[in-house]
Amino acid sequence: MSKFRTYLDQLSGLDFSNMYENDFLHTWDKTTDELRALYAVANALRDLRERNISTRIFDSGLAVSLFRDNSTRTRFSFSSGTNLLGMQLQDLDEGKSQIAHGETVRETATMISFMSDVIGIRDDKYIGAGDAYMKEVSESVAQAYADGVLDHRPTLVSLQSDSDHPTQSSADLLYLINEFGGLENLRGKKVAVTWAYSPSYGKPLSCPQSLISLLPRFGMNVTLAHPEGYDLMPELVEKAKVYSTESGATFAQTNSMAEAFEGADIVIPKSWASYAAMERRTKLYAQGDDAGINALEQELLAQNATHQDWCSTQELMATTAKGDDTIFMHPLPADISGVSCEHGEVMADVFDLHRDGMYKEASYKPYAIAAMVFLQKAKDPAATLAALEGAAKPRWHQA
Amino acid sequence: MSKFRTYLDQLSGLDFSNMYENDFLHTWDKTTDELRALYAVANALRDLRERNISTRIFDSGLAVSLFRDNSTRTRFSFSSGTNLLGMQLQDLDEGKSQIAHGETVRETATMISFMSDVIGIRDDKYIGAGDAYMKEVSESVAQAYADGVLDHRPTLVSLQSDSDHPTQSSADLLYLINEFGGLENLRGKKVAVTWAYSPSYGKPLSCPQSLISLLPRFGMNVTLAHPEGYDLMPELVEKAKVYSTESGATFAQTNSMAEAFEGADIVIPKSWASYAAMERRTKLYAQGDDAGINALEQELLAQNATHQDWCSTQELMATTAKGDDTIFMHPLPADISGVSCEHGEVMADVFDLHRDGMYKEASYKPYAIAAMVFLQKAKDPAATLAALEGAAKPRWHQA
Amino acid sequence: MSKFRTYLDQLSGLDFSNMYENDFLHTWDKTTDELRALYAVANALRDLRERNISTRIFDSGLAVSLFRDNSTRTRFSFSSGTNLLGMQLQDLDEGKSQIAHGETVRETATMISFMSDVIGIRDDKYIGAGDAYMKEVSESVAQAYADGVLDHRPTLVSLQSDSDHPTQSSADLLYLINEFGGLENLRGKKVAVTWAYSPSYGKPLSCPQSLISLLPRFGMNVTLAHPEGYDLMPELVEKAKVYSTESGATFAQTNSMAEAFEGADIVIPKSWASYAAMERRTKLYAQGDDAGINALEQELLAQNATHQDWCSTQELMATTAKGDDTIFMHPLPADISGVSCEHGEVMADVFDLHRDGMYKEASYKPYAIAAMVFLQKAKDPAATLAALEGAAKPRWHQA
Repeated sequence: MSKFRTYLDQLSGLDFSNMYENDFLHTWDKTTDELRALYAVANALRDLRERNISTRIFDSGLAVSLFRDNSTRTRFSFSSGTNLLGMQLQDLDEGKSQIAHGETVRETATMISFMSDVIGIRDDKYIGAGDAYMKEVSESVAQAYADGVLDHRPTLVSLQSDSDHPTQSSADLLYLINEFGGLENLRGKKVAVTWAYSPSYGKPLSCPQSLISLLPRFGMNVTLAHPEGYDLMPELVEKAKVYSTESGATFAQTNSMAEAFEGADIVIPKSWASYAAMERRTKLYAQGDDAGINALEQELLAQNATHQDWCSTQELMATTAKGDDTIFMHPLPADISGVSCEHGEVMADVFDLHRDGMYKEASYKPYAIAAMVFLQKAKDPAATLAALEGAAKPRWHQA
Repeated sequence: MSKFRTYLDQLSGLDFSNMYENDFLHTWDKTTDELRALYAVANALRDLRERNISTRIFDSGLAVSLFRDNSTRTRFSFSSGTNLLGMQLQDLDEGKSQIAHGETVRETATMISFMSDVIGIRDDKYIGAGDAYMKEVSESVAQAYADGVLDHRPTLVSLQSDSDHPTQSSADLLYLINEFGGLENLRGKKVAVTWAYSPSYGKPLSCPQSLISLLPRFGMNVTLAHPEGYDLMPELVEKAKVYSTESGATFAQTNSMAEAFEGADIVIPKSWASYAAMERRTKLYAQGDDAGINALEQELLAQNATHQDWCSTQELMATTAKGDDTIFMHPLPADISGVSCEHGEVMADVFDLHRDGMYKEASYKPYAIAAMVFLQKAKDPAATLAALEGAAKPRWHQA
Repeated sequence: MSKFRTYLDQLSGLDFSNMYENDFLHTWDKTTDELRALYAVANALRDLRERNISTRIFDSGLAVSLFRDNSTRTRFSFSSGTNLLGMQLQDLDEGKSQIAHGETVRETATMISFMSDVIGIRDDKYIGAGDAYMKEVSESVAQAYADGVLDHRPTLVSLQSDSDHPTQSSADLLYLINEFGGLENLRGKKVAVTWAYSPSYGKPLSCPQSLISLLPRFGMNVTLAHPEGYDLMPELVEKAKVYSTESGATFAQTNSMAEAFEGADIVIPKSWASYAAMERRTKLYAQGDDAGINALEQELLAQNATHQDWCSTQELMATTAKGDDTIFMHPLPADISGVSCEHGEVMADVFDLHRDGMYKEASYKPYAIAAMVFLQKAKDPAATLAALEGAAKPRWHQA
C-alpha cells in the first residue's frame, strides 16, 4: 500500500468531525483522535507535494497573519502552508493600521474577516495576554457570523501564545512519528524536556509547555528538568501529569539536567524564563514601569548566569540511550556556545552533530499548519485528499 | 428569478461602457448609470462568492497599493477584493523604495506598472495633494501606454483622497440598497450627515463630502449639520446642491445636530476638521513650520472641545424617524464615549445598538472595490458574470 | 513565422541544460549559449503575455525576496515576474525576523526554503559582502538538499550584488536586442559606459561592471570612461578585456567623457563610487567608525564636485553616431539637472528626449527575471513554452 493510502487509512477510524470550521488554539483543546487526524493529514499533504500534486483547495482566499513578536520560521511556515492550499497572505501590521486609536478587538477582528478564511496569530510576550486575545478574536468572529455580519466564520490558528505553541509541538511530533516509523512507536520512549542556559532572558514558556502537555498523550515518558525557580505554569504541569496517567506513561520532575538526559531516547534542551518572573514582568509592563523592568532583567540575567552548566555537552549526550544517535531537538534558533554567544544552550559540536535532525524537525511546521487549516476547511478531509490525488494536477507544471 | 439574474437584469438597461479601462477616482466622475452598474456588479459578485462560485478573472496579475496614511479596513478590502478576482497584492512602501531621491511621479508610476493591472492609492492628508497625485499617476500611465512603454494601461482606484472617499461611500450605498430593498426605495429618505465631537482633530473631510455628493443623486434628502466654522469644501457643497436639484431631492444645511436628526431615516454622525483649518495645516506642512502646526493643533482641539455636545445619544436617536430602528452609520473606527475616549462621537449604548449595522456597512467595501476593478477589466461585465456563474468553479473546493 | 516560433527556434540550437535547477548570480557564470537562451525565453514570455496567454507553471509556490537595500524597480520586477509564473511573493524582512540573535546564514537559508521555489537577494552595499552572502545561501540550500533536509533545492537569483547586477544588464541587453532587431545586429556597435557626476556618492559599482562584463561577449565595442580615481574592480575590467578579445571586439578606457561619446551608437552614463573608496567605506563600517565614514563621505563628495562637467548635454549627444537618435540608457532613477538636483548626471532636455527609451529599457526587467526563473524551473523550456501557447489559457479572462 502506498504511504498516501496508509495516511487515508489512518483517518478512516478516527472521529475528528469537530475540527471542521473550528479553531486550533491549543493541542489540549483537541481529542487524541483529532491530533492523530492532524498528523495523518500533514503527512498526506507532504506526500502529495513531494509527488508534485497540487493541494490547492482554494481558487482564491485570504490567510491573515498577525505577529506581535518577531518570527521567521513560523511566518514562512504560515505563508507557505496556506499558499499550498491556494490562499494569499495578508499581514495585519498593527503599526500601519488604525488600531491604535482605541478600536476594540471585536471590531478589528470583524473588519479583517469579511473575505478571510483563516487568521494566524502570534502573541506570546505577556502571561495571559496571548490566550485572552485569541479567545476574544475567536469569539468576535463567531459573534459576527451569528449576527449575520460575516457570511462565514474564519478559523484561527495559534502561531504561539504565552501558554502553548501548537504549530511547533505538532511539527515536533510529526518529526518523531517519521523518525520512529509511527506514532505507536513513541510509546514508552524517555524524553528529556529540559531548561538550558542562555545569555538572554525571557524566552517563552510556551515551548516546553507545549511539549509536556502533548508528548504524554501518546505514551511518552517525559522528564521535566530545570533549576529551582524556573517553574512552568502550574496548570500545564498538572495537565502533563493527568495525560501521563491517562496514557500509562510516567512523568518526572527534577532539578538535574544530567538526570533528565540519562537514558533518554530524545532530549529537548532549551532556555525559558520562570513563570513567576514572567508574571512580574507582565505586571511591570502593565504599569509602564521601565525602571522595574530593567531591574528585573538584570536580576534574571544574574540568576541565569548561576546556571551556565545547563548546557548540552558531548559528555551529557554520552549518557543518553543511544549517545550520538539519540534524537536532539530544538525549535531554533539556538544559543550555541562559541557561535552565537560565548556560553549558550548547546555546545557547537553537539549542535553540528544534530543540525540536520533539527532542520528536519523544522521542515514539518509548514505541513502542520497546512493540515490544521485543511481540517478546518474540508468537511470530508479523506475524500478531499483522495480527490486531489485523483486529479493529480501538477503543482509545478513542466512539459 | 434568482437574485443573481436580477443583478444582471439591472445591468442590461444601463450605459456604462466608459468604465472599461478607466479609473475610479471620484463618484462625481461617473454617470448615475455607471454608479448603478457598480452596485449591480458588487451585489452580483457578493452573490457568487456566497454561493462559493469563483470570480477569478485573472490567472495571474498584480494589484498595487500605495497607502500614504494608515489603514486597516480599506487595506484589507483592497487586498481581498482584488484577490477575489485573482490578483496578487504588491504594496508600494515608499520608505523601502528609491522614491526619496527625487524621482518624478511620472517615473515611479511607470516603473510599478509594467505588469500591474490596477493601482489603489490612499492619499488623504493634505488639501489638494491626494487628487493632484492620483491625477498625475493616471496621466503618467496613460502617457506611458500612448508612448508604447506599457503594453496596457493599469487602472486606478482611489482608496481615499482629500476630496472624496469613493470606496467608502459606495460601500455605504450598497449597504443602504440592501437594507431598504433597492436603490429606488432610497428616494425621499432623510439623511443626516452631521459633524460629531472627537478628542482628536484633523479627521478627513472626504468622508462627509463623499456622502453629500453621492446620496442626493439617488433622490435622498440630505441635511448637512456642523458647528459654525466646520465647513466642507465649498465646491463639494455646491455639487450636493446641484445633484439634489437634478434628482428632485432637498439639501439642507444647519448648525444644529438636533435639527438634522429630527425625523431622519438615516443618521451618519462623524467628526471632521474644517476645510479652512486643513488648508492652514497644509500650508504649515509645506513650510515645515512645526511650531505653527502644534499651535494650530492646540487651537483646533480647543475649538473642538467647545462642541462636546455634538454626540449621538439615545435622546437624539429618539427624535429620528424610527428611533432605535433608524439606520445609524459610521465608516469606523468611531470615537465611543467611555470606550475609546472619555467624550466621543457617540455614546456606548447607541454604538452597541447599531454595531451590527455598521459592521454590515463595512462588509460591502471589499465588494465595492472588486466591482470597480471588475468594471475596469471586463469589457462585457454581464457576459463575464454569467460565464462565471455558468462555469461554477468552486472558490473553496471540497470533495 | 510568428515571433514566438522564432524565439523557440533560437532555443533549439543552444545548449543551456545546465541552467535547470541552477542559480543565476552573475552573467559571467553563464555560457553565451545560456545567455542567448535567457533572451529568447524572456522574449517568448513577453510575447505570450502580450497575447494574453497565461504562463503560469506553478499552481502554488513561493518566491522569497530579501532586500538589504531599497528598491522599487527590482522589487516590482521580481514580484511581477514570479507572479507571472504563478508564485506568491514572501518578503524576508530581517527586522521582523529572529535573524538578529546570532542565527547563521546556513540556518536562515534553510528555514525559509522548505516550500520555496526561488530566492531573490539584493545585497549591494559593501564590497565583497553581497557575493559572499549569496554564495553562502546557495551552498546552504544545496547542503540541506543533499542532507535530505529539503526535498528540493530552491534556486537563487541575484537582484544586485556589489560586483554584478545581472537582472539589470539582462534587461538592458533585451532592450538593445529589440531596438536593433536581433542580438547579431549588436556586433560592432560602439557603447560608451561612462561615469557621470552626481551630488550623492556611493552609487554601486555593479551597474557599470555588469555592462562591461556582458556587452563585449556579443561583439560590442565598449569604451569605459571615468575621471581618474574612479576605477572599477580590476578583475571586472580584466573580464571585459578577455571577453572583448574572445569576441573580436575592442575594449577601450579613457578619462574623457567626450572621447567615449564620440561616434557612440549607445551611451550609458551613470555615477558610481570608486572601488578604492568603497573598500575604505566597507572597512570603516566593519570597524563601526562613524566619524571616519562621515569624513570619507565629505571627501568623496568634494572629489565628485570637481567633476560636475561629466554631465550628458545636447552638445555631447551631438557628437554621437546618430545624435538625438543615439540610444541613451540608464537603470533609473537618474540625477537630472534642474529636476531632482541642481547639477546631475544628465541635462533635463537630454533626459526628456530619451525618457521613453529608458522606460522601455526598464520594462524588460520583469521578463528578464521571469526568464531566469523559468529556465531554472523548466527542464525542457521550449516544450513548456510551446505547451503554454498551445493551452492558450487567458491570463486575463473575459467573456
